[in-house]
Amino acid sequence: MNIVVLAGGVGGSRFLLGVREWVRRSTAAGGGDHAITAIVNTGDDMWHVGLRITPDLDTIMYALAGINDTERGWGRVGETERVSAELQAWGVGWPWFTLGDLDLGAHITRSSWLREGLPLHEVVERLTARWPLGVRMLPATDQEVETHVRVEGEGSSSQELHFQEWWTRYRASLPALEFVQRGLADSRPAPGVEAALAEADVILLAPSNPVVSIGTIIAIPGMRDALLAASAPIVGVSPIIGGAVVRGMADACLTAIGVETSAAAVGRLYGARGGGGLLDGWLVATEDADAVAELAADGLTATSAPLWMRDPDSSAALAGAAIDLALAPRD
Amino acid sequence: MNIVVLAGGVGGSRFLLGVREWVRRSTAAGGGDHAITAIVNTGDDMWHVGLRITPDLDTIMYALAGINDTERGWGRVGETERVSAELQAWGVGWPWFTLGDLDLGAHITRSSWLREGLPLHEVVERLTARWPLGVRMLPATDQEVETHVRVEGEGSSSQELHFQEWWTRYRASLPALEFVQRGLADSRPAPGVEAALAEADVILLAPSNPVVSIGTIIAIPGMRDALLAASAPIVGVSPIIGGAVVRGMADACLTAIGVETSAAAVGRLYGARGGGGLLDGWLVATEDADAVAELAADGLTATSAPLWMRDPDSSAALAGAAIDLALAPRD
Repeated sequence: MNIVVLAGGVGGSRFLLGVREWVRRSTAAGGGDHAITAIVNTGDDMWHVGLRITPDLDTIMYALAGINDTERGWGRVGETERVSAELQAWGVGWPWFTLGDLDLGAHITRSSWLREGLPLHEVVERLTARWPLGVRMLPATDQEVETHVRVEGEGSSSQELHFQEWWTRYRASLPALEFVQRGLADSRPAPGVEAALAEADVILLAPSNPVVSIGTIIAIPGMRDALLAASAPIVGVSPIIGGAVVRGMADACLTAIGVETSAAAVGRLYGARGGGGLLDGWLVATEDADAVAELAADGLTATSAPLWMRDPDSSAALAGAAIDLALAPRD
Repeated sequence: MNIVVLAGGVGGSRFLLGVREWVRRSTAAGGGDHAITAIVNTGDDMWHVGLRITPDLDTIMYALAGINDTERGWGRVGETERVSAELQAWGVGWPWFTLGDLDLGAHITRSSWLREGLPLHEVVERLTARWPLGVRMLPATDQEVETHVRVEGEGSSSQELHFQEWWTRYRASLPALEFVQRGLADSRPAPGVEAALAEADVILLAPSNPVVSIGTIIAIPGMRDALLAASAPIVGVSPIIGGAVVRGMADACLTAIGVETSAAAVGRLYGARGGGGLLDGWLVATEDADAVAELAADGLTATSAPLWMRDPDSSAALAGAAIDLALAPRD
């Protein structure tokens, strides 16, 4: 079975670990071979002190390689900030945006390959070949799409920050008026993305940020058409449990686009395929089981299941619930 | 007094430490204020994994800042090679060319500023502003001049290596047929260099590699004219003591251009001003005192002095001997 997952960083990596564990167990139980392809958000990427930083791709790569720093929630385990401290001594970069030394190895390598003319998907292929990840990683697009956030400025003016500044420096505390995705109009799905979708048996939307992660992937020109043209059912997993975000600051992003922070509202944001949306199924948390009937009235098939990913067992069970929902017979 | 020193890496940094110490002592003894300007070779510079590496500028900056690694002879003291190991894991860069982590901070900063459009001399000014070096450092040129080495290839063919590969990987063991300085013809002295020479009271050639360090500086179009147009006397210090190189592999470079490894031969290479060369004086080691009479016959004023720079005393004494020779009354 070909399983394709649209994913952002932290939520995406945890979900992919669950899908990989589900695949391992399924194959061990005689369920045949499965292939996992992750289509990863690149909207948080940026050039920073001359280096191309790809936060979501790295978070997923490190998590699948088992070398991510689970304490900090970013970067690699056992890193130092010796190089970052040097950059700060010279006043380059952002003092609130440190880069670990091992992580810098990836940034220098990636930037060097990009400057040699390699497209991002080839860079990702080369970087990920270092470890047996069990997941083929594709950037959503090779083009540079960078998310900026328009916030209130002095008086009645507004100003734009890079998403990383809004997210990491201000912890999404400045009310966002708008997300501006520079380069989006000129982007297209990276080579391999459309084929992966066309050959998919199941397409899953990870419980990532629905606005700036999954939302950015879907907004790439041609992506929505490729998703809808695929024969595979599309099932999303709610990033909201019990009316609150599990991790990150998706609520601030949802508020900015006028969407309530609830499992039902995010389901409606993606929308049912029959009503002009994407979803054939929507998986909400047991805590949000009330939303199932509410969404059914809107034509969206939802199911509830435990959504907390605490360990391999619970993550694999969540992945299995999403796959079951995708493969369930439909009217 | 304005003292200008043309300098390469290791020999240049030791000599500059001596000049700085001489200045400190002279000023403390009531000898007035002195300013030191170093015009530094950039012919070993290169783009490497997307980073601009400037070995001689860095060696001098770290030595003057007192943070150089005197054991290894390059980089900063207390460095790790953690980032370099990451690059090697991905197969980028040269396995025999490691970059220390603290050093990488300078490379990332420099490359970032260069890509923002800053010329090299401004980059050097910003980098060196971090420490009270006591020496104004100027790159010899802002343009990219990269030294390649033509060596024998298979059969009767020849091939070109980057200087760093020939020097660091092969330890200059492959006989050099020719040094090719790419970009040299389009280079010119960096802003500040010609003014520093014009305002100099003394111009000294450090005991650096006469072929690929001092030789490259002098070969920059306009540099020789600026040196000869200056009113200051020009005195060189021999990098050869007792017929052997003090450090580095200058002998391999001299052999490549058909020059004997001797204090007299290097003096003749630079040449007496009266005979179409540069020098008003040439300082040779006590061990090479025989060369003084030999060179006098060629019209080159030479003096012998202890040239070993072992500590602040001997380094300052050497600098003083060079300055004394420059300021000595001439016919």
